[in-house]
This record gives sequence, C-alpha cells and structure tokens, in this order.
Amino acid sequence: MASRIEPSRMGKEITLSPVELGSQMAKKVKINLASGNPDPKVMPINEIKDAYNQVIQEYGFKSLIYPGAGGQEDLIYNVNKFFLPMLGLNKKDDDMTVITSGAQHAMELVSKYFLEYDPIGVENPTFVETFNALKLRSSINFPFDVMNDGIDTASLRTVLEITRIKLLYVIPNCHNPAGVNMSLEKRKEIAELAHEYDFVIIEDDPYRPIAGEVPPPIKSFDSYGNVIYLGSFSKILAPGLRVGFALGEKKTMEKVSLLEQLDFSTSTINQYVVSRLLKTGVVKSLSEKMSSHYRKKMNVMIDALNEEGLTSFNRPSCGFFLLLDLHKDSWSVFKKAIERGLSFVPAKPFFLKGGENMARLSVTNVEEDKIREGISILKESVN
Amino acid sequence: MASRIEPSRMGKEITLSPVELGSQMAKKVKINLASGNPDPKVMPINEIKDAYNQVIQEYGFKSLIYPGAGGQEDLIYNVNKFFLPMLGLNKKDDDMTVITSGAQHAMELVSKYFLEYDPIGVENPTFVETFNALKLRSSINFPFDVMNDGIDTASLRTVLEITRIKLLYVIPNCHNPAGVNMSLEKRKEIAELAHEYDFVIIEDDPYRPIAGEVPPPIKSFDSYGNVIYLGSFSKILAPGLRVGFALGEKKTMEKVSLLEQLDFSTSTINQYVVSRLLKTGVVKSLSEKMSSHYRKKMNVMIDALNEEGLTSFNRPSCGFFLLLDLHKDSWSVFKKAIERGLSFVPAKPFFLKGGENMARLSVTNVEEDKIREGISILKESVN
Repeated sequence: MASRIEPSRMGKEITLSPVELGSQMAKKVKINLASGNPDPKVMPINEIKDAYNQVIQEYGFKSLIYPGAGGQEDLIYNVNKFFLPMLGLNKKDDDMTVITSGAQHAMELVSKYFLEYDPIGVENPTFVETFNALKLRSSINFPFDVMNDGIDTASLRTVLEITRIKLLYVIPNCHNPAGVNMSLEKRKEIAELAHEYDFVIIEDDPYRPIAGEVPPPIKSFDSYGNVIYLGSFSKILAPGLRVGFALGEKKTMEKVSLLEQLDFSTSTINQYVVSRLLKTGVVKSLSEKMSSHYRKKMNVMIDALNEEGLTSFNRPSCGFFLLLDLHKDSWSVFKKAIERGLSFVPAKPFFLKGGENMARLSVTNVEEDKIREGISILKESVN
Repeated sequence: MASRIEPSRMGKEITLSPVELGSQMAKKVKINLASGNPDPKVMPINEIKDAYNQVIQEYGFKSLIYPGAGGQEDLIYNVNKFFLPMLGLNKKDDDMTVITSGAQHAMELVSKYFLEYDPIGVENPTFVETFNALKLRSSINFPFDVMNDGIDTASLRTVLEITRIKLLYVIPNCHNPAGVNMSLEKRKEIAELAHEYDFVIIEDDPYRPIAGEVPPPIKSFDSYGNVIYLGSFSKILAPGLRVGFALGEKKTMEKVSLLEQLDFSTSTINQYVVSRLLKTGVVKSLSEKMSSHYRKKMNVMIDALNEEGLTSFNRPSCGFFLLLDLHKDSWSVFKKAIERGLSFVPAKPFFLKGGENMARLSVTNVEEDKIREGISILKESVN
C-alpha cells in the first residue's frame, strides 16, 4: 500500500489547519465570528460575472489555453499600471511582478525558492496557514512578538546579533490575527536590518487594498532588493478567483516564476478577468467602499466588546480581525460558545509561544446586530 | 540583495522548460507543430461561457469564496459519478478523489508528499514538464525505454531486482511525446510489480478523455493501493480552467489533500464550472467528438510523413503527439525549419538518455492542409 511507503518530511508534518477546523464548525452555528472570507455583501459578484462574459467574448480560446509560467502579460501590465500605485508601490526597473494563485501560492513559491531547512524569523502570532509553507521548510523559527505598532524589533536585533536568519515573514497591515498595523518607523527599520544582516523579508499584504490609510509598504524603503512583496485580489475582489502576485528584485523573481512550471496553477481566464477589472477601474472604485465598510463593522465590534467589559485587545484600524485576550483558556470558552451558537477561532495555533487565552474574532460574515449578539454570547461563555 | 542569498536545491536547479521555449518560437512562424494546447476549433468555449453565467446565477458568492483543501464537494461528487466511469475507473470505498489545478499540480502535490531525494523510475522519453516536479525532488532517476507497447518492463524488472525505487512515473495513453499506448499486459504487469517491490505508480492520464478506445487504467488492476491516478479537464474542456484531480488510496490522499493548504490554488468558481459541465453531460458528449477529431488530424500527419519518406515513428492511435526520428540532430533541423516558417519541438529534453535526433510533432494547432505543408517543410529541412 502506498500509505506504507515513507513520505517526505513535509508529507509527515502537514496537519489540518486550525483555521479550516474553525471554519467547518462555523457552518453549524448561527453567529460566525470565525470567517476569513470577505463579506459577501460587498463582493462585486455582478462585475465579476460581466467580466467573464466580456473576456470570453473578446479573447475567445486565448483566455482558455495554458497560462504559462510567471503570469499572463496583460495582467502583469495592469497590475503594474493600476494596482501597484494603489498599494503605494513604485515599481523599479529591476523589479519584476510574478502572477500567482493568490498570496498563499506566492508564499509557497518564494519559500520553495529559498528554503531548505534554514533558520527563519516570524511574527508571534502569525497567520498559521500561510506560514505553513515556510515552517515545513525551515529548521529553527525565531518568534518575535507583535506589539501595538508591529513586530518587536528590539528582540529581532538581539537575535540577529548572535545568529543568522535567511528570511523574515511579516504581515504589515491589518495583521491576521493581531489586527494591528506596523508603524512607519519599524517598516524602515526592518528594511535596513534586512540589508545589514542579509536576509529576505516576505511582506505579506493581502489586506492593503481594503485598509484605507496605512503607512507605505516595507518594500518602498528597500533600496537593496531584500524585500519580496506579496499582494492579492482575494479581499477586494474574491478569493475564489485565486489571483495574487509577488513583486521583487528581477534576478530572484525570474527564478521564482520558473518554479511556477511545477504547478501551472493560476487559471488563465481568471487572470484575464482580474486584468479587466483593474483596467476598467472596478478595483480602484471598490477600495474606498471596502475600507469604510469593514471599519464600520469593526467599530461595532469594538464598542460591543467595551460594553461587555472585554477590553484586552489591540484596537485594529483595518481588516477583518481582532485579537482578544479572554484571560481564560480559549478552547474551553470556544466549546461553551459553540453550544450557544457562536463560532470564533481559538488563536493558540497562531502563536509559536503563548496565546492560550487568545481568540481571533472576525467581522466579515456577520451582520452588525449579530456582532453585538455574538459578543454578548462570548461574554457569557467566558463567565 | 535577495539574489545573493543562497536558494534551495530546487531554486538552483529549476530551468526554463524546452517546451516553453518551443512554444515561444512557435508564435513567430506560420506553421505550428509545437503546441501542447488543445485545438481551439473544438474547445467548448460557448458551453464554458454559459456555465460561468449559470454558476454565478445559481451559487452567487458561494462560488467565489476560498476553495478549501481537497476540492469543492459538488465537483468531487460529479467527478466520481460521471468522469471516473468515462475513464474506466471504478472508485473503491477506500479510494479518495482530490481536486487539483490540473494534473501538473497533482504531480507537484504527490511528489511533495512522497519525495525527499529518493530514487525513482521514469519512462524514457517522458513529459519533461510534469516530470520536473519529481526530478527536482529525486536522487537517482532510472530511465526505462518506451517501446511500441509502452515501458520496457524487462529493464524495469532488472533494476528492481538490484535496487529499490520509491516511485514510478508513467503516461499510459497517447504518450507525450512518444504517442504510443501501454499494452493491457504491461498495465497489469507494472501494477503487480508495484505491489511486489513496494513502490508507488503515478499514472498520468490527461489524454484519456479524448483517446477513444484504450485499455483500462493501471489503477483498475491495482488491488493494494499502490497506484495514484492523475486526471485532467485540460484536453477535453480547456487548460485555462486549471482543473484536474488525483485518485488514490484514501489514507495517502487525505495527506496529499492537506498539502493543498500550502497553495490553495484551485479556483473555486472554475471547480463549479467543471462540475456543471460534468452534470449536464457536456464532458461526456465531447469525448467522442474529440477523439475522432484528433485521430483524423493524426492520420493526415501520418500519411504526409509516409509520403515524404519520413517513416521512423511509432504510429500513435490517439492524442496530440507523434515522435519522429529524423536520423539527424533535431536542433540543427529545427533551426532550418524555423527559417522556413515551421516550428516543432526538438525532443532531446524529453529523454534522460539519447533522443538527439527525435522531434515531437503536434497536430493540435494546425489545419489539415497546413499539416501537409509543414511536413513538406520538415522534409526539406532534414535534407
């Protein structure tokens, strides 16, 4: 039997993501504060439908052949022209954009390119699903706490002075699960550290298009080609399209794009669809609408938490998530909450150290009045 | 600079596929015998367009959220119900279907699961692009010649008697690039060898839906769970959808599906589209039409080759490709052909040993009269 044949280290170590587990439980309850999907209410479904029709009409079979590695030319052009400026990115001549099946696939490609059991650094907490692609290919993972203004750079410096890391993974905006933004100063600081200590920064920034005002990307402070920026259309358009990109120094990205030959997984027609939605201005027009929509819902949650006296959290200014300290084991609270019809994600798995009492709460798949009801159930479940 | 930081073995060894190179050259000439894309003439473009509209109409945002690992339930159901029987596969209770972004992505997942610098076996020649996912994770590759009736099982036995392989990769139908089908006897034989010598067979079978009459899959002779079958919708529907699947023993496939968490690359909406085209019978109705279409074109090519006295090839009974021995270095012939407006793929890169004089000729992206003209140019270029 094939199952008796020894798998690779990766094959041995892969496990079901706790986020998947939380999502599966969430389907069975009335109030879902567990979701990582965008709010269906603001998903541009009709615009996407029209784009499919227009793309097939205009390009016919060309939109349905093999995608080729690196991405479809038209989409690369429109990402560079319309999307990068929206994200505060100024593409340099020796930068290159590689289209991927979402930022998750970009993580997989970049880690495949760099890592072979190397030491890396990571925020504590971090988004466990994307981090998996790194973790399964690393030797040591150094965790650095996420503070109100982002990663603890003092601890990072301490580690860099005594050992080498090959790569640092950060989520600068609307952090998942911590909710915070990295400060401007820290962005500049880690860009300089990467140059000084010769490591790669993976800047994973899927929330930027729906974040409103945030500091410029770390990539914009990188003069030496150490930062690889990962972007996505999953939050602003739809995750089901599976389209994102990586932007970095050309020499490196040319190799990363060749690794796409191993999966050729980014749908050609979906690339044309996203390209059209960029060109026609749909993406840009959605950006403002989305950021105020999610901010409004987040404020409802923050008010509800304060009213219930659940006040141990870093106030998010954007995105889907808030990380709450329950001052009690979050699994035991989770079990009680599920019985009462509420789902959230117990956040321990997002932490390399600590986090037993932490809960990730999401505002995306829940109406405003249900947010209040959910937080009220949460309060009961803590007691 | 990130480019100064040492990449992984995979990062170091990845190169541009020779097939990509041939395709790029092919765009510039009038007769393209290099393509691996299906014939646009028979691609069901309108059916696909209608399916996008119907899926968005019926499922709305559900078709546009994250896909989850392992594939969308509705598609798994319809693959099992409608597609597997078309392919001669009888799904057992302890089998499991995992949806992937095409068979290429399935190769990537399966090799990621099993391989960590292990010895493997492979047909000589083989499809170099899919094989890359294995090659970059293997130690030794044992090449076994492809004969008129498929892999040289006598050589395989000789190797198995003296050493161990972890995995054997074969393309049983309409072989790319060799054009041949593996005989019924050899299918049974290698299924038994896999059990006896404890290795995994990857049965890569993307051409089966357009092949017409061929022997049953190797998987159907596997009583012990050693065979993993890879299927695709790329040839019968469209490669740009990026939807395929892997079928194997549940214990193994559960793990393989977890590895999809590393890329989450299979578009949700495209999965719904394929599911609908299965359910409404479009896939089934296309199967017969496609096989006779390609057989007709292949016969035109075979006749043209015979007329020109280019007779050193194994007569393909299905698929896109014919492998011709030019009795002359195929790169030098290629250069002359390109000047005369003809592109094909010099097939050396498909071979682990030999193959210098071999040319892969494709019938997909060329009209019947252009096939004759192309073969005539080829003859001139050989002289």
